[in-house]
Amino acid sequence: MSNKIEIETLNIGIKNGRNDAVCINIPDDATTALVSTKNKYAAAPVILNKINITKNNPKYLFINSGNANACTGKTGMRNTIECTMLLAKKLNCQKEKILMFSTGIIGRQLPMKLISKKIINHSFKFNSSWISASKSIMTTDAFNKYLNKTIMLGKKKISIKGMCKGAGMIEPNMATMLAFISIDLHLNKTLLSQLLKKAVDSSFNCISVDGDMSTNDSVAIIATGENKDLNLKNKPQMLSKIENELIQFCQSLAKMIVKDGEGATKIITITIHQASKKSDAKRICYAIANSNLFKTAMFGADPNWGRIIAKLGSLDNIDYDAGKVILKINQILVFEKGIPAKNSNLNKLNASMKQKEIAIDLYLRNGKAIHSIMTSDLTKKYIHINSTYTT
Amino acid sequence: MSNKIEIETLNIGIKNGRNDAVCINIPDDATTALVSTKNKYAAAPVILNKINITKNNPKYLFINSGNANACTGKTGMRNTIECTMLLAKKLNCQKEKILMFSTGIIGRQLPMKLISKKIINHSFKFNSSWISASKSIMTTDAFNKYLNKTIMLGKKKISIKGMCKGAGMIEPNMATMLAFISIDLHLNKTLLSQLLKKAVDSSFNCISVDGDMSTNDSVAIIATGENKDLNLKNKPQMLSKIENELIQFCQSLAKMIVKDGEGATKIITITIHQASKKSDAKRICYAIANSNLFKTAMFGADPNWGRIIAKLGSLDNIDYDAGKVILKINQILVFEKGIPAKNSNLNKLNASMKQKEIAIDLYLRNGKAIHSIMTSDLTKKYIHINSTYTT
Repeated sequence: MSNKIEIETLNIGIKNGRNDAVCINIPDDATTALVSTKNKYAAAPVILNKINITKNNPKYLFINSGNANACTGKTGMRNTIECTMLLAKKLNCQKEKILMFSTGIIGRQLPMKLISKKIINHSFKFNSSWISASKSIMTTDAFNKYLNKTIMLGKKKISIKGMCKGAGMIEPNMATMLAFISIDLHLNKTLLSQLLKKAVDSSFNCISVDGDMSTNDSVAIIATGENKDLNLKNKPQMLSKIENELIQFCQSLAKMIVKDGEGATKIITITIHQASKKSDAKRICYAIANSNLFKTAMFGADPNWGRIIAKLGSLDNIDYDAGKVILKINQILVFEKGIPAKNSNLNKLNASMKQKEIAIDLYLRNGKAIHSIMTSDLTKKYIHINSTYTT
Repeated sequence: MSNKIEIETLNIGIKNGRNDAVCINIPDDATTALVSTKNKYAAAPVILNKINITKNNPKYLFINSGNANACTGKTGMRNTIECTMLLAKKLNCQKEKILMFSTGIIGRQLPMKLISKKIINHSFKFNSSWISASKSIMTTDAFNKYLNKTIMLGKKKISIKGMCKGAGMIEPNMATMLAFISIDLHLNKTLLSQLLKKAVDSSFNCISVDGDMSTNDSVAIIATGENKDLNLKNKPQMLSKIENELIQFCQSLAKMIVKDGEGATKIITITIHQASKKSDAKRICYAIANSNLFKTAMFGADPNWGRIIAKLGSLDNIDYDAGKVILKINQILVFEKGIPAKNSNLNKLNASMKQKEIAIDLYLRNGKAIHSIMTSDLTKKYIHINSTYTT
């Protein structure tokens, strides 16, 4: 019995020519955890997965791109179940042990004839790679997103692998963001779920620049069952290290999504410091990140601090002293005491903003809460990509 | 003694060559009401006006464009007061009877030498026009915004005039939206304030697509004191007619701002019907209007209903049944029962979306609350205008 994840990539024919489906074979000894969208119009596979994962230990993940199977009603749900039945029969397992993930256009039924024909006739060899899989799940993505990393736990080398799809500006009609991660550890499901939730909260949940979850957003993690002898239960320091490593790994994947960003040229990290409440810091982060005036200024490398301060000032019910706020762009002080900073080095600032990454740090000086999010700039290419999508 | 408003336009030299200031002479018998921004970084003149209008009946309004005098600290406030002192001396009235409005770039001090030189040496004739004034208050506006209308109250012809400045996407760094309205009626200040508040709530407050008020937003209305003999106190029907006319007048001005919209090609009216709460309807309106994916789809005349439904679904704590929601675009049913509408006439829909105005009607079917806002599309020209503004 193997403790390795095995991967198959398929070409169903939903997208033109390219591979458009992936099947992941989960080791018998593995555990799987899942986080998925809270959107009221969650896609059929999302709804089915939520039921299946609580009752069963998944054996296969099946992912299709090109069609989100969202807003597809009862037929959509019937189709999802039929996919799992076809796969169950083919792969000789219970249909409840198959999780399904769909990404692509909303409101169209899955091409069931193509899918059933493919599943029935395809010879599953499970000899494909993560890289090939990461290409197969792409939709509007400009590039495939795969990462692997080795971490040390004591003297053991532990492998983390992961792939994701999605673009920084988050594209609700393209079923948004999917991520799949594996870690070569033996972890119980409860612990794995906790680790995943923490990692997602500090990574994928800190980039969605529209501030919402789409109809199909899902992140799954598999602890393969390897390295059972580490006996992690009694090793809080090791668990803490695993937690931090997973957060960093997910942040790196999330950063790739922001970088993709449908025409994006820059990654901007916005951090609100010293707020009285975490929820305030979060609200300010999103308000700035979602401001088109801010996003276009970043595209133009324009140190237009007035847009940040005016946005802050426009938010009600946030407790701070307007005269005490400090704003830094790329570590250069630009605003304090309610007026532009006197010694701000505009030339240095302009030059630094032409780089690919920009840091916005806003200090409310009214508490200890902090929140940080990553976003991309708003470019003409974004408009071009998104103005004629379904037609 | 005249009951007519008199207007002077000036060229201080803040903007290149063009007139950049307006002085409005208010009849002695008039009343004036004012609504202004709640932004925590409200500009110096906004703060001073709030004090002066409660204590005095304004005699002059003075407006400068090109400099917002926002985020300018104590110096900014001193400069505002000095402007009112210079004008008071020149025009022979108390400085507290002068309201000042500034619009333009944030964070720079007013050019006081230019201003004082101009006010001291200028010969005020008050023989300019509303149209000329509407041009003088422009900043990034693509066109000047002036309207006049005659309404009938009984057998009397009543004139309403108004001008405004601002662009649909609301430009916090350009001090946003100013509007000045006159109506040839004799109204007490309390009643005038109530009328203004209602009119602004249904017009200018329903267009700001960033969802906020900028540092300098202000709307002033002058009831000139004419037609005193109408004796409106005891005529509820006439008052109700005035209220409706003022709402419509302000909506027409607001629509000109949306039309300007920094590169905008379309005006989109989003209406949320049958919500259980007004606040829910409002939140959904803004969420859709602020979605870049939605705005770019409108630019491309793309009937991408999935972006609207996915955005609705992403909002938490709103009470409705996802399966009961109905969506119409330009009166054509596109979504019901959780799936795309079967008979939706896509060709007809595509053609209708190529027109300048688009109506989005979303029915939650869960109550009686309704809210409507106007927004513009997101275009490449918008990015161009806003990406290199201060540099």
